[in-house]
Amino acid sequence: MAPRHRVVILGGGFAGLNAAQKLKRAPVEVTLIDRRNFHLFQPLMYQVATGSLSPGEIAAPLRGVLSRQKNAQVLLGEAVDIDPDAKRVILRDGANFEYDSLIVATGSKTSYYGKEEWREWAPSLKTVEEATAIRHKILYAFEWAERAKTEAEARAWLTFVIVGAGATGLELAGALGEIARETLKHDFRHINPTEAQIILVEGGPRVLASYPEDLSAKAEKLVTKLGVEVRKGVMVTNIDENGITFKQGDQTGKLAAKTVLWGGGVITTAFGKKLGERTHAATDKQGRIKVNPDLTVPNYPNIFVVGDLATLDGKNGKPLPGVAQVAIQGGAYAAKAIRARLEGKHDLKPFHYFDAGDMAVIGRASAVANIFGFHVSGLPAWLVWLFIHLINIVEFQNRVMVFIQWGFEYLTFSRGARLITGPSATDVDKQTQAAVAAQASGKG
Amino acid sequence: MAPRHRVVILGGGFAGLNAAQKLKRAPVEVTLIDRRNFHLFQPLMYQVATGSLSPGEIAAPLRGVLSRQKNAQVLLGEAVDIDPDAKRVILRDGANFEYDSLIVATGSKTSYYGKEEWREWAPSLKTVEEATAIRHKILYAFEWAERAKTEAEARAWLTFVIVGAGATGLELAGALGEIARETLKHDFRHINPTEAQIILVEGGPRVLASYPEDLSAKAEKLVTKLGVEVRKGVMVTNIDENGITFKQGDQTGKLAAKTVLWGGGVITTAFGKKLGERTHAATDKQGRIKVNPDLTVPNYPNIFVVGDLATLDGKNGKPLPGVAQVAIQGGAYAAKAIRARLEGKHDLKPFHYFDAGDMAVIGRASAVANIFGFHVSGLPAWLVWLFIHLINIVEFQNRVMVFIQWGFEYLTFSRGARLITGPSATDVDKQTQAAVAAQASGKG
Repeated sequence: MAPRHRVVILGGGFAGLNAAQKLKRAPVEVTLIDRRNFHLFQPLMYQVATGSLSPGEIAAPLRGVLSRQKNAQVLLGEAVDIDPDAKRVILRDGANFEYDSLIVATGSKTSYYGKEEWREWAPSLKTVEEATAIRHKILYAFEWAERAKTEAEARAWLTFVIVGAGATGLELAGALGEIARETLKHDFRHINPTEAQIILVEGGPRVLASYPEDLSAKAEKLVTKLGVEVRKGVMVTNIDENGITFKQGDQTGKLAAKTVLWGGGVITTAFGKKLGERTHAATDKQGRIKVNPDLTVPNYPNIFVVGDLATLDGKNGKPLPGVAQVAIQGGAYAAKAIRARLEGKHDLKPFHYFDAGDMAVIGRASAVANIFGFHVSGLPAWLVWLFIHLINIVEFQNRVMVFIQWGFEYLTFSRGARLITGPSATDVDKQTQAAVAAQASGKG
Repeated sequence: MAPRHRVVILGGGFAGLNAAQKLKRAPVEVTLIDRRNFHLFQPLMYQVATGSLSPGEIAAPLRGVLSRQKNAQVLLGEAVDIDPDAKRVILRDGANFEYDSLIVATGSKTSYYGKEEWREWAPSLKTVEEATAIRHKILYAFEWAERAKTEAEARAWLTFVIVGAGATGLELAGALGEIARETLKHDFRHINPTEAQIILVEGGPRVLASYPEDLSAKAEKLVTKLGVEVRKGVMVTNIDENGITFKQGDQTGKLAAKTVLWGGGVITTAFGKKLGERTHAATDKQGRIKVNPDLTVPNYPNIFVVGDLATLDGKNGKPLPGVAQVAIQGGAYAAKAIRARLEGKHDLKPFHYFDAGDMAVIGRASAVANIFGFHVSGLPAWLVWLFIHLINIVEFQNRVMVFIQWGFEYLTFSRGARLITGPSATDVDKQTQAAVAAQASGKG
């Protein structure tokens, strides 16, 4: 028997995992390599950060997902280099893996626009550890406000700044509004959590810049209703432990806030850079690899790049957005292309992104959505959002429980996962910061 | 209006939280101080360690539990010293809290019998961080076995030693048996998880030493059925990264195992020691404070010590065991005593522990129980165990969800919370060890 075609997939996110699953019946040997042993349902990360869900509830062990797929194996490891001519990836521990086809789906990391030092004070929402760190920051802020000795100190602990009003920033701001106004309402004796100030800061002229203008306006209105103050046209010039400094038009200002969260953009990872260098591929400003219409790297037809690490223009001439649907469809396309080639078919149509629309959730029963060009907001948009995620997560891992629990907490305003874990709860500020920094530096 | 009687409670475990709740209608001001912001449902900790439940599912935020109790406030802080004559506790950050009555319920920590260096290699199941660290150790062991280069290396990764066959050791061993034989059965390609060796090592002549002998025998039989090897009369003489060395009778031996878990005893904490010194109270071998029959410290009638930190002889002349029921009843008694005194009643009967019995869960649908002197084992015992915990946890925080999910996972053998979190998944052994060490040293 001839040795089987070896497909190596780097990354078990939406793109990589879907590619692996779509190769189930293909005559190939799939090796899925990831640094983590679990797939993460990213769209619900903000729920972990805000204490509604536990990390375990939005994650599925990769081995579990693929355990019945006989032609697939999962490997815990981190790709650090590639030799595209020898068709080999190199892991951090020195191990080499040869492939016949490679699907790179290693994703992106948070960009601080060159100010890596901000990461320490303003965690983003990219990994489970960061989500947990954000949760700690938020919950500790109220604890520290409760014990503050001066009015100004309490005020700084009760001021929350979210930088960047994209979907992530809005989700965080909305959830924070609910935490302060509902969840913690009765929990303190010396402070009034409902007086917390939640400020969403955006450099551009509107929130949700990539959405149609009417939905941006709607989203701003909805999040304002939750007690969030939206400030547009504000460029953050510095972030440290005491808050942010910013520029607004010609003026500069300061905002004293002990809790700053980062809803900014993404950039390529160290491995993404390496891949670009080794294949001499062109990249965009964020370092994403410009792929062919069939998602392969120019001159390397056996290397597919899918998900956040790739960039390709869509029908409208604009690059496809870095969202889950593009990753899922890209992964499926790469799998299909490999299957087709093995069957001797080389006339596969270019990748076409089927764009069902965008949506951003703003709070309990509140969202905005652009579905096939229809603009919806408020409860109807939220129901659509819920339905789509329900379908996705249930299909994916039969996690009906998450949604039962979640519905339950939505109805009761409770948040079951309000745990602050870590070495100890005293001397907390330094520790939270250190933890965030340590976790952040472990990435990259 | 006269200032209200100030009750300070140290510790939000079973004893402290129950005391606070039982003071709900008393004319007092309650301040509950804990290092953590949550109460932990300890009896289900092994489920977190073995990936069935997420930490959030067995914890309840203290503020949430007491939010409607107007006479109670929660404070995040760690007591480090006490001045019993000035009636004052001192927190780590220097803050002082005066009390009229004090309830000390700060619990115990794991004892390594003077070999603190073992902690690094053999985590115990005392805190949420340790439970997570154990989970990481277990899951990584299989990952590393899958990638092992030699047979001997794979074998060492697939050998799990649990030291101490009390209730905790049995729970861990049983759950490990299920993980290896059921949960991970189909998950690997190069190793066969069902060949994992799980060895439960006990210094004494039988498992569950504090139980009646027939139940010990039964428990050993049940855990053996799950693929666990029980070795009795084995004294561990050393633990390091490669496994354990031991003495059995006159012989010494070695066991190569990359994963060692600690099911040993407990000892008093630094604060417990301080309390003993400051009040000149007598202590037992584990450093527990010998309290009066009314749970107060000799010569300090306004200081109650309840839960694991106290020791008092029961009806049978033996010290009361360090279990949840003793803590719960002790906390309630202290609250009742304070209420009675405020009403001018000083003839309260001594604390009487209502002993409903003991039970230890061994695996799926398998347990042993001693209920009012009736010895039960197997499925009936497990059903009783389930029922009692169901009642407890539901009463406590309305967490019906936990049990639905849990029942679901029991039926399907799946374990949803199989996440390995932390900085990165590579170079894992050192990291896990370091994490365990760091977390352990943060305690004390």
